[in-house]
Amino acid sequence: MHGYFGPEGTFTHQALLALAEERGLDVSEAKPFATVAQALDAVRLGEVSASLVPIENSVEGGVSATLDNLASPLAPLQIIAEVIIPVTFDLCVRPGTRMADIRTVISHPHAIAQTRGWLDAHLPAARIVERGSTAGAAQTIADETSGLDAAVCASVAGSLYGLESLAHDISDNEAALTRFVLVAPTGRLPQRTGHDKTSLVAYIHQDRPGALLDILQQFAVRGVNLCRIESRPAKTTLGEYCFSVDAEGHVLDERMSAALQGLKRTCQDVVFLGSYARADRKAPATPFGGTDEDYAIARNWIDEIRSGN
Amino acid sequence: MHGYFGPEGTFTHQALLALAEERGLDVSEAKPFATVAQALDAVRLGEVSASLVPIENSVEGGVSATLDNLASPLAPLQIIAEVIIPVTFDLCVRPGTRMADIRTVISHPHAIAQTRGWLDAHLPAARIVERGSTAGAAQTIADETSGLDAAVCASVAGSLYGLESLAHDISDNEAALTRFVLVAPTGRLPQRTGHDKTSLVAYIHQDRPGALLDILQQFAVRGVNLCRIESRPAKTTLGEYCFSVDAEGHVLDERMSAALQGLKRTCQDVVFLGSYARADRKAPATPFGGTDEDYAIARNWIDEIRSGN
Amino acid sequence: MHGYFGPEGTFTHQALLALAEERGLDVSEAKPFATVAQALDAVRLGEVSASLVPIENSVEGGVSATLDNLASPLAPLQIIAEVIIPVTFDLCVRPGTRMADIRTVISHPHAIAQTRGWLDAHLPAARIVERGSTAGAAQTIADETSGLDAAVCASVAGSLYGLESLAHDISDNEAALTRFVLVAPTGRLPQRTGHDKTSLVAYIHQDRPGALLDILQQFAVRGVNLCRIESRPAKTTLGEYCFSVDAEGHVLDERMSAALQGLKRTCQDVVFLGSYARADRKAPATPFGGTDEDYAIARNWIDEIRSGN
Amino acid sequence: MHGYFGPEGTFTHQALLALAEERGLDVSEAKPFATVAQALDAVRLGEVSASLVPIENSVEGGVSATLDNLASPLAPLQIIAEVIIPVTFDLCVRPGTRMADIRTVISHPHAIAQTRGWLDAHLPAARIVERGSTAGAAQTIADETSGLDAAVCASVAGSLYGLESLAHDISDNEAALTRFVLVAPTGRLPQRTGHDKTSLVAYIHQDRPGALLDILQQFAVRGVNLCRIESRPAKTTLGEYCFSVDAEGHVLDERMSAALQGLKRTCQDVVFLGSYARADRKAPATPFGGTDEDYAIARNWIDEIRSGN
Repeated sequence: MHGYFGPEGTFTHQALLALAEERGLDVSEAKPFATVAQALDAVRLGEVSASLVPIENSVEGGVSATLDNLASPLAPLQIIAEVIIPVTFDLCVRPGTRMADIRTVISHPHAIAQTRGWLDAHLPAARIVERGSTAGAAQTIADETSGLDAAVCASVAGSLYGLESLAHDISDNEAALTRFVLVAPTGRLPQRTGHDKTSLVAYIHQDRPGALLDILQQFAVRGVNLCRIESRPAKTTLGEYCFSVDAEGHVLDERMSAALQGLKRTCQDVVFLGSYARADRKAPATPFGGTDEDYAIARNWIDEIRSGN
Repeated sequence: MHGYFGPEGTFTHQALLALAEERGLDVSEAKPFATVAQALDAVRLGEVSASLVPIENSVEGGVSATLDNLASPLAPLQIIAEVIIPVTFDLCVRPGTRMADIRTVISHPHAIAQTRGWLDAHLPAARIVERGSTAGAAQTIADETSGLDAAVCASVAGSLYGLESLAHDISDNEAALTRFVLVAPTGRLPQRTGHDKTSLVAYIHQDRPGALLDILQQFAVRGVNLCRIESRPAKTTLGEYCFSVDAEGHVLDERMSAALQGLKRTCQDVVFLGSYARADRKAPATPFGGTDEDYAIARNWIDEIRSGN
Repeated sequence: MHGYFGPEGTFTHQALLALAEERGLDVSEAKPFATVAQALDAVRLGEVSASLVPIENSVEGGVSATLDNLASPLAPLQIIAEVIIPVTFDLCVRPGTRMADIRTVISHPHAIAQTRGWLDAHLPAARIVERGSTAGAAQTIADETSGLDAAVCASVAGSLYGLESLAHDISDNEAALTRFVLVAPTGRLPQRTGHDKTSLVAYIHQDRPGALLDILQQFAVRGVNLCRIESRPAKTTLGEYCFSVDAEGHVLDERMSAALQGLKRTCQDVVFLGSYARADRKAPATPFGGTDEDYAIARNWIDEIRSGN
Repeated sequence: MHGYFGPEGTFTHQALLALAEERGLDVSEAKPFATVAQALDAVRLGEVSASLVPIENSVEGGVSATLDNLASPLAPLQIIAEVIIPVTFDLCVRPGTRMADIRTVISHPHAIAQTRGWLDAHLPAARIVERGSTAGAAQTIADETSGLDAAVCASVAGSLYGLESLAHDISDNEAALTRFVLVAPTGRLPQRTGHDKTSLVAYIHQDRPGALLDILQQFAVRGVNLCRIESRPAKTTLGEYCFSVDAEGHVLDERMSAALQGLKRTCQDVVFLGSYARADRKAPATPFGGTDEDYAIARNWIDEIRSGN
């Protein structure tokens, strides 16, 4: 059974449905959790086999919680898949409600902020009511006795609560892409696809000039490109940092294996967070001298020298 | 007049009060804005002289909005101060309410998640109600007709709405530090204090191996240490990145000036976001060969050579 | 008047004549010196205006002496030109001598070694006599009473002593290119030609991992390419090093000026040895962001920021 | 049987005797060769088991020849030992000759140049005669019929030809240290001593900015320090380079093995020239994270991850 950062009807839920369709998974029984920490602890406790949580650019929060929770070296987990979806809002109503009927709109403050221009243009007289989540807003509208008329929410939330969408994608700006990761217990290394990504957290020995440079050079000399890097406070004191990194390739690639060993030797600690297929299926450029075959040739060469021949 | 990411009673508001006390500012007229974008646009339009917004680890969101809004090269602003405060939650009630009287608690879902352990231990029977912000929760409790008993909120929100705090700092985990920045129009460069920080966004020419390394080396060869680095999607397509950077020192330091010029020459674009005193007043280690005097000596040396003597 | 590492008829002399022809100089009065040190001290003492000495791949030695003499920070000189010529040997005899007449051949041991194959093939019965220099060998042959028949020497030596060349370019291997530099007092900076080279010696603070890397990065971040690098013992103890470097470009180029200032700040000492036109007239690739205009734009940008506007 | 760059009585011969004494070798039958190339080819042909040749700062030349001969990837050899000796000159005469008797002095021009001050002070009236080698000068003096009185030569040359030393160490400047290497066929890898050095030549793919930097970073990320680096023309055209490198440590050290494999993958070619004990017995600083144990720990860590467990 899968878990996710809920409640039902959030964008994380929508991302889970997208993943399920792509992979032919049954997520009808998937269990929502109120916080990222609960969703991840449920994996650690074996309550669910894997949980989907946001990790980049989420409008509903959770990103910091995910990064910091996964960064802990104490109870390691592993990312086994990623999903990227655009965050688009719909205006959802109970079936039968027309635009002209709408006098009140409910949603999360962030969603209201991002659709303010559309609301001012199309529902200038509507009263705005805040709710703690967009999914909760949809649930409220589904209740005829709520006295409210429309929710700004994910389309999945509208469907879930039997609402009708009067307008699709009403964000004032272009839809932001949000990235989610499916997190499982360690030991389930996904196979190489040729378009993979490896995530990790590197703890440095001290806040010194050059520490980050050293980390990047461990990747650079092996020709491994980075997709994302973020310094994170190692605990609660701003100023002591670790680095959260996504790099192109799979730990079964020799160059990635070598780069990770280099980090392991020179950092205070390295938390391996998984190798998994990229959502965009983009294959990395083959670095010069960085194929598995290049590594094998170099190893044979040195083995011959070391054997005294 | 100052603006801030509101509403009144949020942690941003609390940070503004802390900054005002430290600097002897009058912020009694400060104006809250519903979104980070509105708070910053108000500075651009001259509606307020400066706005305080969250930029790192905010429990109430806004961090992505701040980073991306400031990163835009089109309508530049400048950070002139930073404030760091711990995020601590209080349990606030109308005067006279006792623990034994509490049957319902209202707050933002993130705040509830972070105090869940305390609530389970001390108010196991209480019903939890969600609200779009912790400040909104405090406002609701202030209304005797709300039918609700207690809010989990910032202490500033309790004070603001005339509530009493029954318990301080009820987070389950150690308080996270959150960082806020005061943003003003460009052209108001704060003076050097000796413990300064410089923020900028560097846009790279392409997503190539080594681009980040090149950026870091522009700092490293001048002995400038970084405090924070984060890759950010340059627009809405994940995969095309810029780098949001905080570095130790002031642009009036020769080494910082040189590093920024190096970035300017080799990056697609660099957005200067300000030099300002660090909240922790930590002075950078003096890098070898990196003082203003070292720079002056080297310049005199080369000038003499170039003059043909 | 010019000086050079003599005696007359050496390859250094030949290089001086090549330089004189190219530049329209009169070197008929040029003065040979027995050692590189004497040739350079004569410049320091004002006895000659400039001296030509070998600096790379000389068959007659002198390279170490030149590198170490110029490296000293105490009595600095400046390179103002370079000459590169192929080292080719001729078989020279008194006019009238034919191949069949040759029973003895005289030359410097290095020249004999490099023409051994040719001598074995064409003069298998000849007796080989060693002399301290190829020019001295030619001088000996010019003396009819020497009892010797042929010299292996530079063609210039043959001409000088009125000999005839029986065979040109008799080296067993392809001619090695040798590089010579014209050294003058400091203060005569040659003008930019667009295809220049800058020479310097950098003394590092200690023999530590990364010192050389730091030096190279000072060049790399400004897009300055190196032509030659050589670690040299700083004094007489092997293990304490300085670096002798030739880099592409002129100190009047902004990027070279910046790189040299970076070295000056971070090294124990830097000895500037001159900017001068390359013998091969090869222009450096224009590095991205490294033109004088790029530097001017970056400086204007930072000046505006620093002026608080 | 050993070979060396002769003739008998040169500093290379003196270095061979020093090595023999240190290692208890019998070199009484050692064979001198007229050129470095002949000394090394004799190893390739099996005529001698190993040859000693100069590789750094030789007053008698041969350094360029050694570097370029060993650099060739076609007929590889391997350095198995190094010797460092100071170059000191003696004034040698036939037994019975006194200072007052000396009217002529013979030597190689370089040796004369380096003792000129002493000769001017002590033998102002003596006539100077040039010879192709200092050993040849000693041999000439041994011949009573030569009509010459004294040789400036290595003390070993004096002993060899039965001469007496009238003055030791008559160089005008402090004695230069010269470095020699014992070269054997490939396949005889000396054992680790803990104070070893590894020599190699790296051919780069093209003359591009950053190629040398890339090479150095392959060493730096593994914490391997360099002792010597020299760019060398790859063939006869100045401008196409390879790098001749000595690095601290043995190829049996994991960090050296890893650095060499990195070079092998990213350079056009790498010629391994041997790992051997340093003459100065200086042990390298243990780099952080660079011990064999650090490598083993990192490998176990990654193996566990890669095994999916």
